[in-house]
Amino acid sequence: MNNSPDTLHQQWLYTSHPTATVSAEHYTLHKQPLDTALDRDEVLIAARYISVDPYMRINQSSKPTYNPEPHALHTVQTAGVVGQVLASNAASLKAGDWVFGMTGWQSHARVHVSSLTKIDPAIAPVSTALGVLGMPGRTAWFGLTEAGKPHAGEVVVVSGAAGAVGSLVVQFAKRHGAKVLGIAGGAEKCAWLTDKLGANWALDYKAFADADALSQQIQALTGGVDVYFDNVGGMVTDAIIPIIKRRARIIICGQISQYNGGLDVPEMGPRLLHHMLYQRATIQGILARDYLHRMDEMLAIVAPWVKAGELVFEETVIDGFEQLPAALNSLFTGEHRGKLLVRV
Amino acid sequence: MNNSPDTLHQQWLYTSHPTATVSAEHYTLHKQPLDTALDRDEVLIAARYISVDPYMRINQSSKPTYNPEPHALHTVQTAGVVGQVLASNAASLKAGDWVFGMTGWQSHARVHVSSLTKIDPAIAPVSTALGVLGMPGRTAWFGLTEAGKPHAGEVVVVSGAAGAVGSLVVQFAKRHGAKVLGIAGGAEKCAWLTDKLGANWALDYKAFADADALSQQIQALTGGVDVYFDNVGGMVTDAIIPIIKRRARIIICGQISQYNGGLDVPEMGPRLLHHMLYQRATIQGILARDYLHRMDEMLAIVAPWVKAGELVFEETVIDGFEQLPAALNSLFTGEHRGKLLVRV
Repeated sequence: MNNSPDTLHQQWLYTSHPTATVSAEHYTLHKQPLDTALDRDEVLIAARYISVDPYMRINQSSKPTYNPEPHALHTVQTAGVVGQVLASNAASLKAGDWVFGMTGWQSHARVHVSSLTKIDPAIAPVSTALGVLGMPGRTAWFGLTEAGKPHAGEVVVVSGAAGAVGSLVVQFAKRHGAKVLGIAGGAEKCAWLTDKLGANWALDYKAFADADALSQQIQALTGGVDVYFDNVGGMVTDAIIPIIKRRARIIICGQISQYNGGLDVPEMGPRLLHHMLYQRATIQGILARDYLHRMDEMLAIVAPWVKAGELVFEETVIDGFEQLPAALNSLFTGEHRGKLLVRV
Repeated sequence: MNNSPDTLHQQWLYTSHPTATVSAEHYTLHKQPLDTALDRDEVLIAARYISVDPYMRINQSSKPTYNPEPHALHTVQTAGVVGQVLASNAASLKAGDWVFGMTGWQSHARVHVSSLTKIDPAIAPVSTALGVLGMPGRTAWFGLTEAGKPHAGEVVVVSGAAGAVGSLVVQFAKRHGAKVLGIAGGAEKCAWLTDKLGANWALDYKAFADADALSQQIQALTGGVDVYFDNVGGMVTDAIIPIIKRRARIIICGQISQYNGGLDVPEMGPRLLHHMLYQRATIQGILARDYLHRMDEMLAIVAPWVKAGELVFEETVIDGFEQLPAALNSLFTGEHRGKLLVRV
């Protein structure tokens, strides 16, 4: 929790475009006195947990991505935030209430009440509004159920399986009765996938010399892939597409292996689309925003599992507002498990 | 028509796997006296038109493709055939009747009546059973309508647009009210696409230095792509995927640019799957066989257009049974327009 007096308004401004890895040099810390004036229906919140997510790097690409324009320079980095109400001119919120809002990388925000969602701390830790009960949970749930359409007995392979989205996809797929292979970087993450998340198999992609070797091992373990939930792209995808089964569904949720430069100047890889033809398979790109209006459907199913302690939703928490750029950078080095958060 | 006496049974046997381009050296001509004996419900047919299709080269790949095993060596090349009944022990067919069957590259075939489909020559030229009213028509119709789902006002781009399937997709898409760009090799084919098939635009991919240049021109003409019906893959696909629009549908019907070697040892190309994410787009592989049981749905719509002369279904006819391997080879040099057939 933040014990500092609420008189200083700190903001991380995005001030230069990265061409490779994003780090602190692309941000500038801006400090100003906190303005506590509120208009009608406005709320002043103090950030308690601030999110860092791979999508932030996508929108720093110089080319059009999910938005036509890159993130504007010299503005506060866009981000999901869990905060507490300090003062409210709105009837529906009072001081001390917990809220979620897209208020970005700043210590405080003065916003219209309509841009905030109240969080009930009785359901789950409030930080889950940035994870299993928030954007990553929604992405995992709808990506798997709407695009992946897994059936009991099918083989679901998840790349980036130890990440915020992947770790949920592993568990959601198991609940559908699928046999699940998680792919992650490092033996420790793999042990976590099988021992804690219930994956049938886990493979450390770093332990394989190339895509062919990884492909052979996946084939040997699973007999072929019905659903591939892809968070990473690159070599792991090269290993999987040649061993998809008939009518396989491939969900492109992320391509994190390509974010440090490959979005602007694409990396080269083997042409694989002929396999789509042989297997009459489908590749579908998904984005969390497309399911925002259906959040209640996900929460109705997943929140009871969270409340009952039936889902593992690990968080890696970094303390300190000043750590935000470094935390974003560390998403791409892959050492964290589950959802990466900064606590203010 | 075949005026030779029906005493000689000629067969093209597939006798060696190509590693690059397929040609006559991979086939052996086998001749034997024609056996005219017939069991109950058997029919003796003489081939009149024999098909050559790109899928034949796919099944010569050493790796699993749409079939788990490559085409067996020392067997007659699989192919669709339009023939005439010479003799029949089946009640439903009599001498002189026209039939379609998958009897392969041979001058005659003795088959069970259940493997033949009777053709009504009053509807259209009988050769159309290998083209617009056969497998290519079915592929174009269901690939476009079921996977492409084009809407009026949308932009449909067709690669291999002067080919057997592509030339139909162009016309079917126009009938859906779409704006259609056909991509083909050479100015003559492009003129045919706009002047005869009604394409809004046509581009000769050979006139562009690279995928980026082609991409810019497609973007300038169309403003972006809603549906991409892909018969070729490679550089044309590299040009199109970066300019797909939101919820674009990409149909992988063929990847002919990859068939001469790239199926076994994939060619390298730029990684493009991140665009699927940005646009929440779909890639779907389709295969004609999956719609075989729905042939009547296609015929009910398309056959009246053919009979009324409202569709262009050009055929390039090569005369002579001995020309079959050379005709197959010429599919990959791209000089023909529409459906390529060998007349026996």
